[in-house]
Amino acid sequence: MARTRVGIINVTGYAGVELARLLGRHPGVELASVTGRSAAGQALGDVFPHLAGIGLTITADPGKVDLALVAMPHKESTAAIIPLLEKGVRVVDVSADFRLNNPDDYPKWYGFTHPTPHLLAEAVYGIPELYREAIKKARLVASTGCYAVAGILALAPAVKAGIIGPDIIIDSKSGVSGAGRSLSLTTHYSEVNEDVSAYGLGGHRHLPEIVQELTKLRPVPAPVITFVPHLIPMTRGILTTAYAPLTDGKKGQEELLTLYRDFYRESPFVRVVTAPPHTKHTWGSNYCHIHPTLDPRTGRLIVISVIDNLVKGAAGQAVQNMNLMLGLPETAGLEAAAIYP
Amino acid sequence: MARTRVGIINVTGYAGVELARLLGRHPGVELASVTGRSAAGQALGDVFPHLAGIGLTITADPGKVDLALVAMPHKESTAAIIPLLEKGVRVVDVSADFRLNNPDDYPKWYGFTHPTPHLLAEAVYGIPELYREAIKKARLVASTGCYAVAGILALAPAVKAGIIGPDIIIDSKSGVSGAGRSLSLTTHYSEVNEDVSAYGLGGHRHLPEIVQELTKLRPVPAPVITFVPHLIPMTRGILTTAYAPLTDGKKGQEELLTLYRDFYRESPFVRVVTAPPHTKHTWGSNYCHIHPTLDPRTGRLIVISVIDNLVKGAAGQAVQNMNLMLGLPETAGLEAAAIYP
Amino acid sequence: MARTRVGIINVTGYAGVELARLLGRHPGVELASVTGRSAAGQALGDVFPHLAGIGLTITADPGKVDLALVAMPHKESTAAIIPLLEKGVRVVDVSADFRLNNPDDYPKWYGFTHPTPHLLAEAVYGIPELYREAIKKARLVASTGCYAVAGILALAPAVKAGIIGPDIIIDSKSGVSGAGRSLSLTTHYSEVNEDVSAYGLGGHRHLPEIVQELTKLRPVPAPVITFVPHLIPMTRGILTTAYAPLTDGKKGQEELLTLYRDFYRESPFVRVVTAPPHTKHTWGSNYCHIHPTLDPRTGRLIVISVIDNLVKGAAGQAVQNMNLMLGLPETAGLEAAAIYP
Amino acid sequence: MARTRVGIINVTGYAGVELARLLGRHPGVELASVTGRSAAGQALGDVFPHLAGIGLTITADPGKVDLALVAMPHKESTAAIIPLLEKGVRVVDVSADFRLNNPDDYPKWYGFTHPTPHLLAEAVYGIPELYREAIKKARLVASTGCYAVAGILALAPAVKAGIIGPDIIIDSKSGVSGAGRSLSLTTHYSEVNEDVSAYGLGGHRHLPEIVQELTKLRPVPAPVITFVPHLIPMTRGILTTAYAPLTDGKKGQEELLTLYRDFYRESPFVRVVTAPPHTKHTWGSNYCHIHPTLDPRTGRLIVISVIDNLVKGAAGQAVQNMNLMLGLPETAGLEAAAIYP
Repeated sequence: MARTRVGIINVTGYAGVELARLLGRHPGVELASVTGRSAAGQALGDVFPHLAGIGLTITADPGKVDLALVAMPHKESTAAIIPLLEKGVRVVDVSADFRLNNPDDYPKWYGFTHPTPHLLAEAVYGIPELYREAIKKARLVASTGCYAVAGILALAPAVKAGIIGPDIIIDSKSGVSGAGRSLSLTTHYSEVNEDVSAYGLGGHRHLPEIVQELTKLRPVPAPVITFVPHLIPMTRGILTTAYAPLTDGKKGQEELLTLYRDFYRESPFVRVVTAPPHTKHTWGSNYCHIHPTLDPRTGRLIVISVIDNLVKGAAGQAVQNMNLMLGLPETAGLEAAAIYP
Repeated sequence: MARTRVGIINVTGYAGVELARLLGRHPGVELASVTGRSAAGQALGDVFPHLAGIGLTITADPGKVDLALVAMPHKESTAAIIPLLEKGVRVVDVSADFRLNNPDDYPKWYGFTHPTPHLLAEAVYGIPELYREAIKKARLVASTGCYAVAGILALAPAVKAGIIGPDIIIDSKSGVSGAGRSLSLTTHYSEVNEDVSAYGLGGHRHLPEIVQELTKLRPVPAPVITFVPHLIPMTRGILTTAYAPLTDGKKGQEELLTLYRDFYRESPFVRVVTAPPHTKHTWGSNYCHIHPTLDPRTGRLIVISVIDNLVKGAAGQAVQNMNLMLGLPETAGLEAAAIYP
Repeated sequence: MARTRVGIINVTGYAGVELARLLGRHPGVELASVTGRSAAGQALGDVFPHLAGIGLTITADPGKVDLALVAMPHKESTAAIIPLLEKGVRVVDVSADFRLNNPDDYPKWYGFTHPTPHLLAEAVYGIPELYREAIKKARLVASTGCYAVAGILALAPAVKAGIIGPDIIIDSKSGVSGAGRSLSLTTHYSEVNEDVSAYGLGGHRHLPEIVQELTKLRPVPAPVITFVPHLIPMTRGILTTAYAPLTDGKKGQEELLTLYRDFYRESPFVRVVTAPPHTKHTWGSNYCHIHPTLDPRTGRLIVISVIDNLVKGAAGQAVQNMNLMLGLPETAGLEAAAIYP
Repeated sequence: MARTRVGIINVTGYAGVELARLLGRHPGVELASVTGRSAAGQALGDVFPHLAGIGLTITADPGKVDLALVAMPHKESTAAIIPLLEKGVRVVDVSADFRLNNPDDYPKWYGFTHPTPHLLAEAVYGIPELYREAIKKARLVASTGCYAVAGILALAPAVKAGIIGPDIIIDSKSGVSGAGRSLSLTTHYSEVNEDVSAYGLGGHRHLPEIVQELTKLRPVPAPVITFVPHLIPMTRGILTTAYAPLTDGKKGQEELLTLYRDFYRESPFVRVVTAPPHTKHTWGSNYCHIHPTLDPRTGRLIVISVIDNLVKGAAGQAVQNMNLMLGLPETAGLEAAAIYP
């Protein structure tokens, strides 16, 4: 039986090249094409020597595919997706173009007016742990932002269960690959190595995703979220530390673990762990490790979550969404353990 | 005129060796001796080749000195300090043994009963920005913990002025040298590199220092502080992100800057900065850069502070305290700019 | 059909844990047991959270297995292997205990008299690119040292073809994981980060392996090899730069590439590349990229080779040897591409 | 007495900013101006927060200075230097524009015809350990390339004494700051971190400097040098490993040390050491540590040298040259020990 033909739109960024790694050996689909503007015509293995085994040439056009994974910069993504949908191609968008439900958020957070608000209304936010069934039937899935998935998974069980009040602080630490392959002084080796800094203090673009999803889980009282991302000297990984006041200080650690484990019982990539997790435990894999804990001295919930920002935070999440859309096992092509050390 | 003779007790840890670097070329004192148990008898430059220029030999005993900087592990420090004080030697303690005012805190946080509570009562907490005058006259100064100085300097102006409520979250990111030179899997290269993790979730030992000092600045309502330190893959530097609710949401960014600048007007090593600071801006130096900012969407104060954990967080702070005790310029031997990149 | 049962002896070092990652999802064998002295009785996933999916418990004894992969420290390895062989278990040894053909080399390089010289004579040196057929039939395979495989693969085609003279310099740069999981100041994070150093100047233990194998390829004139390893601040990867005088300066770059490509035509994990390779191109994979080039100004051959020291340099090489011994496809369980960036 | 006024031309690159750090607190000169095209008009401390203490504003023109340190890119440097010399300003050039004695080398190695061959003839190659007296009297000093100083200092004593034959291999490992502050994929964090690669295999631009200087020390037989630089994941530091055949195998280790120590007896920044040196031993300082050793098995000399590429390899070397030109103590402003760890 012919396997579903899938294509990667814009393979040359870090999300795109990671999609190629995961799809090049995926058991349920055929990676039929990889596109890239500047590199069109070159062998994939010449641009990315670790992918020489895939044997594809980068093209300008995806050709005939059944499903496309689009890893364009935001705003450009929509332009690439519209013709695909018109041809009947299903789409997983790795960009931010279809993540926010409210069209008014695009001018505010991304600086452009959304050209296709009706598609925004149709798109499903691609976090399988919350929207598994909707994703299966979707024509267009908006895969999550890397910080968003770490923050939402850390807090969703607590917010939904109402065990915390609305005052939420999310402090995230990310490796540098999240900033992409485009050059900037911010990602220049000698500037980043042996350094840590906060950024996005005026409001990072993944904040509205987090607010949107946690508010849906508990609209009243709406969560009041401060989110500060930090850049730390490593390539891959996000560790998120979330803080919130407990509404019922008598909840114990065991009840908390049970709450989280129940919430993620059907989610193969989430592991609720009892020791503080390390990003290294998920390096190169699609897993998210979550450690919920209580601070009895202050009556606060502290949750630590870790992911690989390019896998569960980008390409792996997209493949997981694709698997659901195609009726494949959710874990297909994503079973590899993390690489340690 | 003879310069004051000073000695370093336990030069072989990272705080000790950094003290030697700073004191080896200090214009106002003579580094007369450096002690170390296991390395006694060896040339300092054989153990630490970068200090070959100092020309001292490590000894078991400090000999005759006027002031000692003690960089022993906690609990052992007291034992080393008592005979020094008895001989009339003034002491800067780099350990935690004299930082907490309440003797009851020692069994709780450090697991031992403090042998000399009367000295606890006498010791001055060694943060010059708060206790400059008391330090000048002190016989025994308890230099601050690395996380403590970053956290206290970040919040002191806001707490003192009462512009924030008591709910304070302090999220710190530290380089690995803070864990010292003793071996552990936690500081094994392959475990730490390309990794980030939280630790001390049950209560880190620098928390009581922070609580003690911020509570002194505003006892009612007492601050309720959660502090979570994180280990990130770099050698030196601490970045602290502190969050608290503003009591008066109408305070503007300019007023905030003015408040902080006024507070630190007489403090030569604190720079209040208007852009998010990087630990690299203070690498190898005694400076602390502080960036206070408002999150108008949530009515919260966010303050970022950065230091070099081995300088302003340990050895440099100790030298600054020593300078005050000896009536030297506060900045003597500490004027070097950070090394960038 | 029942899959072959294999066991890992000493799973708690870096080679052992990497074997578990590779064998936990190997399509042709069943990972039946993992042993470890200090950790016996603990769940593998508690000690190594990234391997929680394997679901094994660490034991003291391997139980009934058909083949064992032994990742003990040298000298201890022999003691573990003898009873296994006696029970009819085939063995891949990841240690150095059976790599050197000449028993006299053990006192000299490893400081002990080899207890079973007859097994030394029987053991096959486990570099599939040179000894594929012998490995298939072997009862005991001595998998190669990490530096040795990088050095031998870089030079074997040139030495065999006689295009270089005997004066060979091998300068290698290795990540820190090669030094293992045991603690030492040499692998303490703050010592290694932002540092590079040479070591083993008096003769590194992988040198006799390299000399042995290259001499076998061309005994006269015997190669005269200097090998200097360097420790660089990264976790995984070895880059080897090999230098030798060309015997025939008129050889061109194309002939050189052809020579290397022909030599490795049947070797699925060796890629002869035309641009300087990066260790990152092989990170987490079993590939070795080799770049032979000419320095026409001096009439020298320069060859660069890169591997992941824990995969092609240790665990992956062992699995590749195991595959051959068991009649499985040589690439089984090892097809994963490197992870980049 | 008025101190000599000096200016930095192009302060915004890594060599320039490091010059500012060193000259901002130099006891013998006044840093009168710092220039930079794109940043002209900005406060130095706004562009480089660690230099806020210097209090200068970046200008387009150096104004009136007695000596200029020029840190322009090669080729542009000459254009900046000519008018300075015409005004009677003495110059230390940190670029490569005046390093090669033979004008024919410029088209070959740098791709341009040298516009002022007469100045080439006048310029003194700025390695104080070889040309101290000439530098003192020079009007124009061409400060050395970072790889060149590490390689030349490692080999000069052996070459001059004739204890090695002409076949020399120089294998260098450099931190990334040597590639400067300009953006490129080669210095993009996620590409460099956890990676090592060789480059310049076709001939690096520092090779002709090394050949020129070692050949001057022993013209017959002229050294035949292969030089391969490698980029390793750290910010600062170069470690050079040099290999050469000994002409007289009976030389012992003690004689070798004596030869090197005698050669550098008058050189305050060179330390001949008896253990393999680490770049960390020189981090942030102007020192060069050299470890000459014998490989008795092969009859070869192996020399390891380490420097901080931005200090002894660039800015510190320039200041050392300036000190000599101005009749100041050679070590003025450069006495700081390395920062460890």
